[in-house]
Amino acid sequence: MKAPPERWPHAQAWVGQGVAAIDTPSLVIDLDAMERNLARMAAFARERGLRLRPHAKLHKSAELSRLQMAQGAVGVCVQKTEEALRLAAAGVGDIFISNEVIAPAKLARLASAVRERTTRFAIAVDCAEGIDRLAAALHGAGVTEAAAIDVFVEIDVGQGRCGVAPGEAALALVRRIHQHPALRWAGLQAYHGGAQHRRGAAERAETIAASAQAVRHTLDALRQQGFEAPLVTGAGTGSLVHEAASGLWGELQAGSYLFMDADYAANERDAASPVFEHALFVKSQVMSCSADRAICDAGHKSHAIDSGLPQVAHPAGLVFANGGDEHGVLRTAAAGAPLPALGDTVWLIPGHCDPTVNLHDFFVGVRGGLSDGRVERLITIDTRGALT
Amino acid sequence: MKAPPERWPHAQAWVGQGVAAIDTPSLVIDLDAMERNLARMAAFARERGLRLRPHAKLHKSAELSRLQMAQGAVGVCVQKTEEALRLAAAGVGDIFISNEVIAPAKLARLASAVRERTTRFAIAVDCAEGIDRLAAALHGAGVTEAAAIDVFVEIDVGQGRCGVAPGEAALALVRRIHQHPALRWAGLQAYHGGAQHRRGAAERAETIAASAQAVRHTLDALRQQGFEAPLVTGAGTGSLVHEAASGLWGELQAGSYLFMDADYAANERDAASPVFEHALFVKSQVMSCSADRAICDAGHKSHAIDSGLPQVAHPAGLVFANGGDEHGVLRTAAAGAPLPALGDTVWLIPGHCDPTVNLHDFFVGVRGGLSDGRVERLITIDTRGALT
Repeated sequence: MKAPPERWPHAQAWVGQGVAAIDTPSLVIDLDAMERNLARMAAFARERGLRLRPHAKLHKSAELSRLQMAQGAVGVCVQKTEEALRLAAAGVGDIFISNEVIAPAKLARLASAVRERTTRFAIAVDCAEGIDRLAAALHGAGVTEAAAIDVFVEIDVGQGRCGVAPGEAALALVRRIHQHPALRWAGLQAYHGGAQHRRGAAERAETIAASAQAVRHTLDALRQQGFEAPLVTGAGTGSLVHEAASGLWGELQAGSYLFMDADYAANERDAASPVFEHALFVKSQVMSCSADRAICDAGHKSHAIDSGLPQVAHPAGLVFANGGDEHGVLRTAAAGAPLPALGDTVWLIPGHCDPTVNLHDFFVGVRGGLSDGRVERLITIDTRGALT
Repeated sequence: MKAPPERWPHAQAWVGQGVAAIDTPSLVIDLDAMERNLARMAAFARERGLRLRPHAKLHKSAELSRLQMAQGAVGVCVQKTEEALRLAAAGVGDIFISNEVIAPAKLARLASAVRERTTRFAIAVDCAEGIDRLAAALHGAGVTEAAAIDVFVEIDVGQGRCGVAPGEAALALVRRIHQHPALRWAGLQAYHGGAQHRRGAAERAETIAASAQAVRHTLDALRQQGFEAPLVTGAGTGSLVHEAASGLWGELQAGSYLFMDADYAANERDAASPVFEHALFVKSQVMSCSADRAICDAGHKSHAIDSGLPQVAHPAGLVFANGGDEHGVLRTAAAGAPLPALGDTVWLIPGHCDPTVNLHDFFVGVRGGLSDGRVERLITIDTRGALT
């Protein structure tokens, strides 16, 4: 047994320990399941000739970013400047901020990192002001080389969040990017977040068909003015088979496939989609027992509930009810079935992995299964709390 | 202007900066409002001759714990062993874990801290096994003095979470505690979490009347066997006027009064309750604009949504809709009203403060108001992520 590294003074687990010794609540990766997901997704993209740029907003980890890139991913996506800078500092060499950044202080930090030339950065824009501010920040940081950063014009493909309207409005932004030599127009960002969580396979297909129409319309408008988009990037775990089949998207940004949460698993699966397994769990313990319930030590400070409560992976037959910030209330699905006993381990599948990961400082990576496995490594969640 | 302390390499704010310069999203305390809440709560308890032991699961901060104790609080509560140990290490001298701990590894860490004798600890129990394990851990750590730790028997006063049934079952646990000289029976833990969030004042009054009946029944059962409870502890911001008026509770554990979130503010106020103001805000910025919406840079990685979405404190007339992990969608409450512009600041009142605080590494403490104030200090959130 090995002591935890210095940077984990409160580590809930040590490398080499058996699963039973992991303190609770802890965020545990079933490494075998994760690696199967990793390989299946890499194969899916490779077989279709598509670039894979997984979203690191899921795992927030430089180590897992490198693992994905070692399996063929061209780089990773993030949503926040601070995420990009921390991953770059940890050695990730190709990072796309698939989101708008307009604060000059943030852009100045990004521009300084661009100047280092150790990581290739890309960023999304959806307005002229954002483009001009980005160019000004690069100028302010003394970045003089041409095409120092890749810039994607984000179009709103139906989600109604960020993104310029498809067509002419996108064209104006592409022209604007070309006015700044430090910016390289890299293509279109086209992502429909809402589509990921529509339950029916047909419903998701229809939604992405409409998104594809918006992309096609924009590509046509651009082409008529002589602009050939180098790439269209987007897609998530819930919808990727449709973007992949469209012939429009050249890069997939799916992230959740790595861990699969309860919410994604509740989707009707598309026939063409790889099968992804649950690989992320909250290990919890029963801390109080009554005649009709057992209380475990994981509440919504341990797992996010924005996409629903966690499911109980083990023991079978239990239903998790909300017990607040620090507790979960476990009842049996069938009347009269046995409840777990004081001290028993309860494995939870988070409703939504991304914000669950953001609650923890590290993953406990287990090899050999959750019943008999051992802790193989602890994986730092480098960009936890990287909100800015 | 002063550089941030070394331990905040990514601090979103520096001491001395104006509010406008605070990066977004950031968790900001209006220190003036917080201090008014602090004084009102201290006066409420003092005037009624009640002990105040605020719940540090709200603010997770040693500095704010010390501030509360300087204003008369006898100590603080926490929910987790790791919270207790971190606050003790940061110099908080009186800490009650108002929750059950049954894992031997956790109890061993607690027992080691008890042995130091620099912090007075208390803990809740709701089963014989928990009592015996606590005593064994103290023995294992070489704690030989009598009454080395205070132990409260938690009774379930209607919430249906932890806690032994009122009456005879509690008596058995009190007897059990007396079998272990290292444990001092300190009284009853009687808290109804669900009562805090019932909207109607009459509804909360009824709920706590039933809780009081359970407490009275238990105190009578104990008294008949010669056990006079030294103290009954419990109550939260939503219900405290009722526990205070009952003549049963001697100690109030309210925490949220310090910050007041949107959920508590939605309660019909009890006439006897002090007026508490919103003192905790997420500072956010508009990062994308369309004809019908503005998108700000705060989503549910910046604020918890388990008790509802945040409200917009400023500018007036905006409604916040869920935009996912990293975005908020802002629309006008009245059709045709103006939307904020790109780069504008948006101040959000979190739906639920406790898990919101747990998403951040520090508070930015502002003096002089959110419009024209300055950053007076950064306050570390010492027990963020202290889940075990």
